[in-house]
Amino acid sequence: MKEKLILITNDDGVHAKGLAELIALARAFGRVVVVAPDGARSGQSNAITMIEPLYKTKIADEEGLTIYKCSGTPTDCVKMALNNILDHKPDLILSGINHGSNSSVNVIYSGTMGAVLEGCSQAIPSVGFSLCDHSPTTDFSNFLPFVKSIIARVLNNTLPEGICLNVNAPLGEIKGVKVCSQAKGLWIEEFDARKNPHGQAYYWMTGKFVNLEPENTNTDEWALNNGYVSIVPTICDLTHYKSIKWLKNIGYEQIK
Amino acid sequence: MKEKLILITNDDGVHAKGLAELIALARAFGRVVVVAPDGARSGQSNAITMIEPLYKTKIADEEGLTIYKCSGTPTDCVKMALNNILDHKPDLILSGINHGSNSSVNVIYSGTMGAVLEGCSQAIPSVGFSLCDHSPTTDFSNFLPFVKSIIARVLNNTLPEGICLNVNAPLGEIKGVKVCSQAKGLWIEEFDARKNPHGQAYYWMTGKFVNLEPENTNTDEWALNNGYVSIVPTICDLTHYKSIKWLKNIGYEQIK
Repeated sequence: MKEKLILITNDDGVHAKGLAELIALARAFGRVVVVAPDGARSGQSNAITMIEPLYKTKIADEEGLTIYKCSGTPTDCVKMALNNILDHKPDLILSGINHGSNSSVNVIYSGTMGAVLEGCSQAIPSVGFSLCDHSPTTDFSNFLPFVKSIIARVLNNTLPEGICLNVNAPLGEIKGVKVCSQAKGLWIEEFDARKNPHGQAYYWMTGKFVNLEPENTNTDEWALNNGYVSIVPTICDLTHYKSIKWLKNIGYEQIK
Repeated sequence: MKEKLILITNDDGVHAKGLAELIALARAFGRVVVVAPDGARSGQSNAITMIEPLYKTKIADEEGLTIYKCSGTPTDCVKMALNNILDHKPDLILSGINHGSNSSVNVIYSGTMGAVLEGCSQAIPSVGFSLCDHSPTTDFSNFLPFVKSIIARVLNNTLPEGICLNVNAPLGEIKGVKVCSQAKGLWIEEFDARKNPHGQAYYWMTGKFVNLEPENTNTDEWALNNGYVSIVPTICDLTHYKSIKWLKNIGYEQIK
């Protein structure tokens, strides 16, 4: 059997603990190439670098593992890997393990999931892993057996084209796995106003997440709050197909 | 009737021609507040600014129109407007008019649509407008009557919660409007390698868009290539609901 090629990236940067844990697990399944940002790129979504050039540096090269750091976003890392580094399409793209949750609406801001959506748009099976704890030294050990099993399963069963997985885990003991929908939720931001030494006002954006459907037991938020790993099948086709007919019926195609 | 409040942003920056055109049209419908990036933020997707502070400056204030520039991304601009500038929730969020297409998979990279998805996640009717031409001096005149009619229609009919609109227009004569799905497509990137004056290699990322379903007449790409404005009903819930059952059936909830 041909050796599997696995591309790994993240949004916490090439030196993050979660990335090292994911690399260690993935090596059991094949050759691993890492192309990860040279520093933190949290909240970078699917951002791409357009008006700056990109740099890449090979920082490790051993049997079965090559690591590059890249000056761009997680999405840039995937694009650079696919078009400038790898000699053939990888069998799998993994992103993470993120330090912090990417459940609910966080998926649209997440650099971790940006990389996964990029892989998905390129028709490559892609999975993002996140642990609901921001600490840079957090303990991933309860999550790791699940990560390993999910990698094995995606390599064996693959995924339908156009579908990627958003996998999140609670901190602490894990009861099992739930396949879920993305909970309806939103962030309410606060802007902490300060003055810089030159007298100019500036703002730190901070926010509070609000789960809009706390009673819905089919959501990722419910699973995580109740001790389960959540797996949300996630798409990069944002069309709401049911609304096409509705918009036609109320006359949108008659607009002049 | 209470005066409508319309929030406008974009990703080409506060001085872009497309923004000025959109402001001029929107003023006919109510009070307009603009919070737009202080420079180009193309390709910024739903990126949020986390490790830098944000600056905002009021640059115009006249009857019915206030304009702020902000140092952040389009999504930051919406968050700052909703939580730090506006005294109540706007009736409508508009983004654009973008200089360049946001059809097909471009929706996941687009800063224009990032702002729209942010508005959508906040349950505010939100519409992104883009013209398929990157020129900073491009001619929006054929598109403007459609933009005006779509604004009127959304204000009258509103939109289902969780649904926003991605509106694109071809350059030149416009035949009418099609309500469409997002065409399946992807970018194949090239990395133009150069050396900086210090001898380090760097790369400019350039890409070529590939439409994966050129024969499908229900897509935005087909509409745009055939002279129509495309309207895609777009969601910020990325769950692929049909795959939940499939993942359960093949045993994902039995993973240990």
